[in-house]
Amino acid sequence: MSSLRILTGITPSGTPHIGNYIGAIKPSVASQTGNSLYFIADYHSLVKLQDPKVRQQYIYEIAASWLALGLDPSKTIFYRQSGVPEITELAWILSTVAGKGLLNRAHAYKDVVAKNMQENLDPDAGISMGLFCYPVLMSADILAFNAHQVPVGKDQVQHIEIARDIAARFNHIYGEVFVLPAAQVDEQSHTLPGLDGRKMSKSYGNTIPLFAPSKQLRKSVMQIVTNSQLPEEPKDPTGCTVFQLYRAFATPEQVAALAQRYATGIGWGEAKQQLFELLDALLTEPRQQYDALMADTRQIDLILQQGAERARAVARPILQQVRQAVGL
Amino acid sequence: MSSLRILTGITPSGTPHIGNYIGAIKPSVASQTGNSLYFIADYHSLVKLQDPKVRQQYIYEIAASWLALGLDPSKTIFYRQSGVPEITELAWILSTVAGKGLLNRAHAYKDVVAKNMQENLDPDAGISMGLFCYPVLMSADILAFNAHQVPVGKDQVQHIEIARDIAARFNHIYGEVFVLPAAQVDEQSHTLPGLDGRKMSKSYGNTIPLFAPSKQLRKSVMQIVTNSQLPEEPKDPTGCTVFQLYRAFATPEQVAALAQRYATGIGWGEAKQQLFELLDALLTEPRQQYDALMADTRQIDLILQQGAERARAVARPILQQVRQAVGL
Repeated sequence: MSSLRILTGITPSGTPHIGNYIGAIKPSVASQTGNSLYFIADYHSLVKLQDPKVRQQYIYEIAASWLALGLDPSKTIFYRQSGVPEITELAWILSTVAGKGLLNRAHAYKDVVAKNMQENLDPDAGISMGLFCYPVLMSADILAFNAHQVPVGKDQVQHIEIARDIAARFNHIYGEVFVLPAAQVDEQSHTLPGLDGRKMSKSYGNTIPLFAPSKQLRKSVMQIVTNSQLPEEPKDPTGCTVFQLYRAFATPEQVAALAQRYATGIGWGEAKQQLFELLDALLTEPRQQYDALMADTRQIDLILQQGAERARAVARPILQQVRQAVGL
Repeated sequence: MSSLRILTGITPSGTPHIGNYIGAIKPSVASQTGNSLYFIADYHSLVKLQDPKVRQQYIYEIAASWLALGLDPSKTIFYRQSGVPEITELAWILSTVAGKGLLNRAHAYKDVVAKNMQENLDPDAGISMGLFCYPVLMSADILAFNAHQVPVGKDQVQHIEIARDIAARFNHIYGEVFVLPAAQVDEQSHTLPGLDGRKMSKSYGNTIPLFAPSKQLRKSVMQIVTNSQLPEEPKDPTGCTVFQLYRAFATPEQVAALAQRYATGIGWGEAKQQLFELLDALLTEPRQQYDALMADTRQIDLILQQGAERARAVARPILQQVRQAVGL
């Protein structure tokens, strides 16, 4: 199936944490082929983040994380969204065939409207055109490359359906140009619990950083909330944050060994120490690469520029077809 | 005031008629300077027109009309909107600072919603994202060049205000990048009545073509609706379509002479013949140039490509500033 064109994007909206690693970076790196496209969605980040310095920092952090964790920019196509102007051009063209009603029904938009109405505000209070039009840009992200499959979480499935709808509508009006993309939803859950047991997420402030120095990583792991059971009490690994995090990174043998310790009694401090040591061992080498990249961001720029050129080489002929189809 | 950057766009949505000439082409040509920008809004045309062949035809017809009527592409900047990808890139960036509420209040959108509701349809029935987002693209048309003044009809003033609002919002968030553009409304009315006395407009089907062959022009003029007064009766030029059209093209002396004939009695056939002869004399030379250009559209393509390169040379450094300001 390596001839399928698979597209994965990450929005630079925060410093990568281990939840991002398990949820997006690791699976995307594991499945890389010459037909895989990886991009940093910096245009998208404009919708929520309005600090230019922080944006640049996040862009580099995500690029360096992906590279340090095994993304091969010579084997895949790895670029910044803003390095490919064909994407915004296509977004405009797609907007002229996309019904506004389709976007009115997008979950992300509807959620904010519902919240506004609960607070007796104007339904569109604080909503930018960028937020409202976001699924059209995402459709262009996909269709500019005629990507076949887009690995996404369940919350993103609707966006792929919108891209499909828009592609089908375009094909109907102007002739067959676009492949109808499909969402590739991994049924296996790749979400991790955070320090407080809720889903690990920047917005909850409960993350464990991916590339913090060893000391800071340990400090973060030690902050995981546990119950008040005494060290010698047998413990249930089910629903235990420490255990779930451990399982996400350990070999089956390591998991079985820790489960055994839970059954016979283990102190929380010791369990956390085991988790820290596991993470630290796995991350030491990538962390060195990450630090080296972050110390020379020109190298990252260069890699992303070369990737953008390769991405444009894929997008340009597709845009050429689009322009011809619509008569531009 | 020739250092002001003035921008004029025409959407290729129909074959140019004499109303377009008086309303847009003539005044824009009369005021051309080295700082004037003229563009064919082909991205905009996607909103209403979905026939690629017809679009291409209209693009050439408008370009050829402008050139035949005196637009000097070596002195001004003359281009197709779709030749400048910086415009759609900027449109996305602007959308992330434009409040959706601002666009909800745009007249063109509200008019369609009102019509839908009158007909008990969904308020957004048949409305594309392109129609809804159109004022954002128009803002990008202007701001990509930091144009100071935009000559528009009264119905377009709100769009310039939206562009001003978006520019001010961007400057507030990211620092001063944009000139706040101003609408330049000519208080002198430049609209012409059509064959049936209503405003000459493609949508009313009451136009007189600008570059039809002489015979067809005469036939069209003869179709102007007049009243049933007899030839010898004195006639009131006020509100008379034939007279208004004559006045838009004639010298003051010619106008005075025709007014004199109206006072003493003139047959409608003769009045129309005078109008036809006036138009035909004025349009004979431009028509030859128009026909020559339309017979060799590669020449038009070349002129527009060269213009697009010059337009991009203006837009690129502005986009560079924008990207730096937002941290891309």
